[in-house]
Amino acid sequence: MLRIPTGHETLVTTDFSLEGIHFRREWDTPERIGHRCLTRGLSDIAAMGGEPVAVFLSLALPLKLPQGWVDGFARGVLKLARRFHVTLAGGDTASSPDGVLADIIVVGSVPKGQAILRSGARPGDRIYVTGLLGGAAQRIFELYSTSGKRRRAAHTPTPLPMPRIEIGRLLRERGLASAMIDISDGLSTDLSHICEASGLGADVWENAVPRAKLRSNQLADVRIALHGGDDYELLFTSPRKSRVPDRVGRVPITQVGEITPTGKVTLVDNNGARSKFAAHGWEHFSHDFSYRSRL
Amino acid sequence: MLRIPTGHETLVTTDFSLEGIHFRREWDTPERIGHRCLTRGLSDIAAMGGEPVAVFLSLALPLKLPQGWVDGFARGVLKLARRFHVTLAGGDTASSPDGVLADIIVVGSVPKGQAILRSGARPGDRIYVTGLLGGAAQRIFELYSTSGKRRRAAHTPTPLPMPRIEIGRLLRERGLASAMIDISDGLSTDLSHICEASGLGADVWENAVPRAKLRSNQLADVRIALHGGDDYELLFTSPRKSRVPDRVGRVPITQVGEITPTGKVTLVDNNGARSKFAAHGWEHFSHDFSYRSRL
Repeated sequence: MLRIPTGHETLVTTDFSLEGIHFRREWDTPERIGHRCLTRGLSDIAAMGGEPVAVFLSLALPLKLPQGWVDGFARGVLKLARRFHVTLAGGDTASSPDGVLADIIVVGSVPKGQAILRSGARPGDRIYVTGLLGGAAQRIFELYSTSGKRRRAAHTPTPLPMPRIEIGRLLRERGLASAMIDISDGLSTDLSHICEASGLGADVWENAVPRAKLRSNQLADVRIALHGGDDYELLFTSPRKSRVPDRVGRVPITQVGEITPTGKVTLVDNNGARSKFAAHGWEHFSHDFSYRSRL
Repeated sequence: MLRIPTGHETLVTTDFSLEGIHFRREWDTPERIGHRCLTRGLSDIAAMGGEPVAVFLSLALPLKLPQGWVDGFARGVLKLARRFHVTLAGGDTASSPDGVLADIIVVGSVPKGQAILRSGARPGDRIYVTGLLGGAAQRIFELYSTSGKRRRAAHTPTPLPMPRIEIGRLLRERGLASAMIDISDGLSTDLSHICEASGLGADVWENAVPRAKLRSNQLADVRIALHGGDDYELLFTSPRKSRVPDRVGRVPITQVGEITPTGKVTLVDNNGARSKFAAHGWEHFSHDFSYRSRL
């Protein structure tokens, strides 16, 4: 039984993490896979400006899975849960016909009427992202598409995503975000969700998109930063008159474009040339790249 | 966003329905599989004396699944949800590496402090079950273990389980149930959960267990009624002085034994002979029967 504070609404998120679709056991440690699994749910709560209250985990495991893997996965989930003072309150266990199947449910709360929705953007609002984009997807892309030394290098773990709960709360408390979503499927896809829900369009300035610095000291590929998923940063819109800080703690907040009344989502390149900024561009970019689900 | 009534606690249940583990597509219509999927969650809410508020469905589908199957599955879920005035409030979709994977999340509410727990049984309490047991498992057993005419007959659908929301509410409102659980894994397994949580034992009277009437007009096998799962009836304990009705609407309520202070769960047969009533007895009874998960 959960106690949601009086005057608060209950938020519920549910996200699958499926072996072979969302992760591969040979590409990451169980701790990191557990961390990413819970990140998916906490990041959804952050994007509504909510506070996480409790976590539920449905886990189906193949019979031959080593116990050590399960222990590591659970450690990854629990360590991140503790970081946000959330309890693992229950769940379901089953045997899996094939591969590890996890569904993470996060219950959260937000003061009544204050949840930040996808539908609240207005023409002229500025579009911001937290953090740097493309780091997670660049690693996966190299594991898929390269070989030899470059592929081995890609096996080296990259920094783990951290759900932006504190930034989501700050944006809600200060009334800074008119619409918000987390970047789980990629900037192009998640921005299209805000534009659709708000019935508006957007201009995105290619040059402004903050790209992750890779281990090689290069920046992530610009197409990967624009379309790749799994960064779990926040994407939000803010009225022009609002004063959005340029960082919160060590996390930069960067304007990447603005909302337009057109209904079209457009990418503006460094020379001012305009092209359609298609959602699911990531798929078009690489048909073989089936890491993220697209149903 | 969900509004939980003031003075109520939030209940959350999560239950996997995995193809090859919990169901087989060749054995049932998609509507019936959808119905059973939601029944798992609603039945958990019923067992706490709660009211369902909203449903969330995470669904991973193989790429080659016909759209008609998905539509049928959704119809089965939505029809049952409407029956209990519950909305499908969200969820997640993904592509599945193998088979249909569903996780159903039901959010419910119960007046503060009034949820019926597994741990509330007291020595001398009577043990009751709603409805008739063994019908669902008998069909599965025959699909697994028989051939020819008998197996073809088993393909004929049996009545669908109906979550006992109204009975759970009535038991809570009248203060009749000291402990409660739903029979999803079988009477022996689910009774052991109540006994463990309450730190007590039980005597179960074999002859008293109400068995489902099969299409053949025979009763379900007694071992299947004792150990088979998937009936989604309620199992509850009630103090001796309570007046438990012998039916609610058309659903019989039957005393099947009593709680003892011993810590042992015992089956008492028609001759008064006593034997250990082992949880998971179903597994021991048939090693090949892997229909239910046992993790």
